[in-house]
Amino acid sequence: MFHHAEIIAVGSELLLGNVANTDAQYVSQKLAAVGVDVLYHTVVGDNPERLRQVTDIARQRCDLLIFIGGLGPTYDDLTKDTVCAAFGVATEFHEDVMEEISGYFKNVFRREMPDCNRRQAYLPKGCTVLHNPVGTAPGCVFTADGVTVAMLPGVPHECRYLTDHALLPYLQARQESMILSHTLHVFGLTEPKVQEELGDLMNGAVNPSLAPYAKGAEVQLRLTAKAATEADCERLLAPLMQAVRQRLGAHVYGVDMGSPEQHAVQALTRRGLTVSAAESCTGGLIAKRLTDVPGASAAFLGGVVSYTNGVKHGVLGVPEALLQQYGAVSEPVAKAMAEGARRITGSNLALSVTGLAGPDGDDRGNPVGTVYIGLAKAGGTQVTQLFLKGDRKSIRQQAADYAFALLNKYLQKINP
Amino acid sequence: MFHHAEIIAVGSELLLGNVANTDAQYVSQKLAAVGVDVLYHTVVGDNPERLRQVTDIARQRCDLLIFIGGLGPTYDDLTKDTVCAAFGVATEFHEDVMEEISGYFKNVFRREMPDCNRRQAYLPKGCTVLHNPVGTAPGCVFTADGVTVAMLPGVPHECRYLTDHALLPYLQARQESMILSHTLHVFGLTEPKVQEELGDLMNGAVNPSLAPYAKGAEVQLRLTAKAATEADCERLLAPLMQAVRQRLGAHVYGVDMGSPEQHAVQALTRRGLTVSAAESCTGGLIAKRLTDVPGASAAFLGGVVSYTNGVKHGVLGVPEALLQQYGAVSEPVAKAMAEGARRITGSNLALSVTGLAGPDGDDRGNPVGTVYIGLAKAGGTQVTQLFLKGDRKSIRQQAADYAFALLNKYLQKINP
Repeated sequence: MFHHAEIIAVGSELLLGNVANTDAQYVSQKLAAVGVDVLYHTVVGDNPERLRQVTDIARQRCDLLIFIGGLGPTYDDLTKDTVCAAFGVATEFHEDVMEEISGYFKNVFRREMPDCNRRQAYLPKGCTVLHNPVGTAPGCVFTADGVTVAMLPGVPHECRYLTDHALLPYLQARQESMILSHTLHVFGLTEPKVQEELGDLMNGAVNPSLAPYAKGAEVQLRLTAKAATEADCERLLAPLMQAVRQRLGAHVYGVDMGSPEQHAVQALTRRGLTVSAAESCTGGLIAKRLTDVPGASAAFLGGVVSYTNGVKHGVLGVPEALLQQYGAVSEPVAKAMAEGARRITGSNLALSVTGLAGPDGDDRGNPVGTVYIGLAKAGGTQVTQLFLKGDRKSIRQQAADYAFALLNKYLQKINP
Repeated sequence: MFHHAEIIAVGSELLLGNVANTDAQYVSQKLAAVGVDVLYHTVVGDNPERLRQVTDIARQRCDLLIFIGGLGPTYDDLTKDTVCAAFGVATEFHEDVMEEISGYFKNVFRREMPDCNRRQAYLPKGCTVLHNPVGTAPGCVFTADGVTVAMLPGVPHECRYLTDHALLPYLQARQESMILSHTLHVFGLTEPKVQEELGDLMNGAVNPSLAPYAKGAEVQLRLTAKAATEADCERLLAPLMQAVRQRLGAHVYGVDMGSPEQHAVQALTRRGLTVSAAESCTGGLIAKRLTDVPGASAAFLGGVVSYTNGVKHGVLGVPEALLQQYGAVSEPVAKAMAEGARRITGSNLALSVTGLAGPDGDDRGNPVGTVYIGLAKAGGTQVTQLFLKGDRKSIRQQAADYAFALLNKYLQKINP
């Protein structure tokens, strides 16, 4: 049973801001799901003294330390040696791991393994090896002085693979209680408004706990319980869930929907419906997010990024007269774009987005943040106007979030 | 003059993995650019005891602490009170800040300011206020016991705005030296190969320093110098730059190109050329990344996400015979897709991507990771076949990176 975890990412590229610490995000999500509380994230550079100091602090305050990165074959990959020294654990050569690494070179890179990769087969004495079939850096777990120490490679897809296939099963087998969360999805209320409505439920709640979180176009409410079994967790959650639903009524439009694009793909597939997209200011973001979802091809046929009036007219068939009379950022054009995408792809439904993400407004006086979203369907097309705040990136994300929310609300009304 | 910085992000949503710590990434990038070394990132939840403990550790090892998040109006926004208590600094009410906040409510939210937002006008006694015109949470900077403490809001666009417009000017005015970096972009060599070629230059280098970094389809070499003036930095960098270029020859294909999509938009715009995209497995990612760049509309006309054969044929005009004979993931289809996008959008150039991002291969025996990239231009269409490794997300990113690299290499060959 682990009580408190710290995730320690090692890599100067993180401190230079070259990349975001998405590994820590991923591992945190997965640990939360098996009932491990993550209390700290730390990032430190490829520097043995500072890594040692960070390790010494972490072992005083947590009983599960997860190191990510610095397991490669080069001189600046120092995590294993530094952490093992801190815990007084020796490393030893693993013949089977060595064979896996040289096999990976032979089968995937199609060349002989360089000598420097031998370093990667040295692992802490007595550790559990986290075998890595998707790269060359194996992970490991060992326990010393009452602290469990795991090491994972920093390459994102290797980190994700080892977390799912090796670390989580290891941890799950050692947990005495579990955590279960449900997420209620709320649309049409701001986060402060939700806090106002639920303040008393939130302030007192420990197990189950209740936390609101504004995400894109919606507010998510996370209800979390900790207990010995799943059934016990559900028993703790049920009354709180009911109380929240009573107070917020129809604003609660779903439970555990995942990301809005995941939910859209599932809801469409379940109903045997397809969607397409015609995007102007979101510039492909809606298509990109839908196709992030494995299996999207069952529900998403494709789309058009119409970044110019020429493409709106030439590919989507938006009448030139509409573009001239109302401008590209207008309700009639949003409607014609959605209908155009539906017609040329043959999809059941089609989303369209046209708007101003900034930095500049248009020559018709529309301010940055003006966005029209269309949803075309057999019975006609609905268009919603939004005035969004934020910078270019944020406005694009919000516009896509609203488009998914409109689609999901519409799908919810159709059986099943 | 600041020597060592620590960035401390406050927010339980980071520890739950709901969001990645992109604020720390952004601030790190900007600090590096003004010559501040970031030695640690720390993330802690909305918990005053742990935040206090983290603050006490940070002030022992760094002389610049940057806190991000927890400046909102609600009960769990505790950064200001906790940090001020740690440094023995009182807070005081700022009338002018209060007016800015209530003005923001009036002008942007179009409603009266709730009472709880009064909390946000209390700031550390004697601090420099970082005024926030893009949200309600002001930032601040103060110095106590030889440590400079800055606080920034956690909402990403507010954090970015205050970093650029308030924090950086404040820090820059207090720096005695500056840091200058140049990035050389290398295409066609792996990172280990680059390390092999440049090992002796890298190992000895301190000022200027030389660090390789694999990013997408290319390897980036970051050359960094620290000196009193920009001219002094350039003088330090010149001989190293020349030595690297001599060793790597034509593999170095650019300097300080920014992201590949930024470079593509700039290079196209400078040459008066336009591009479009026909995307299958990248599903809109290329269009999305191009339109992430402000001003993309000068160079990017639009594109088609053809996630099904129906859309490849119906919208892009890929002959059905080709799809049947060679399959969607094939050189002839990549060629026809690029040519189709070029024809229907009227662009000068067009990129196409068709491939298998996984999790499943296709029924013709192509393994996951098989990707064809096409570049159509007036003189004909070139198609490159790739075998990429990684999971779905990684393969999609790599495919887009390769497409941009091919486009950028092609543009480099055209004058100017």
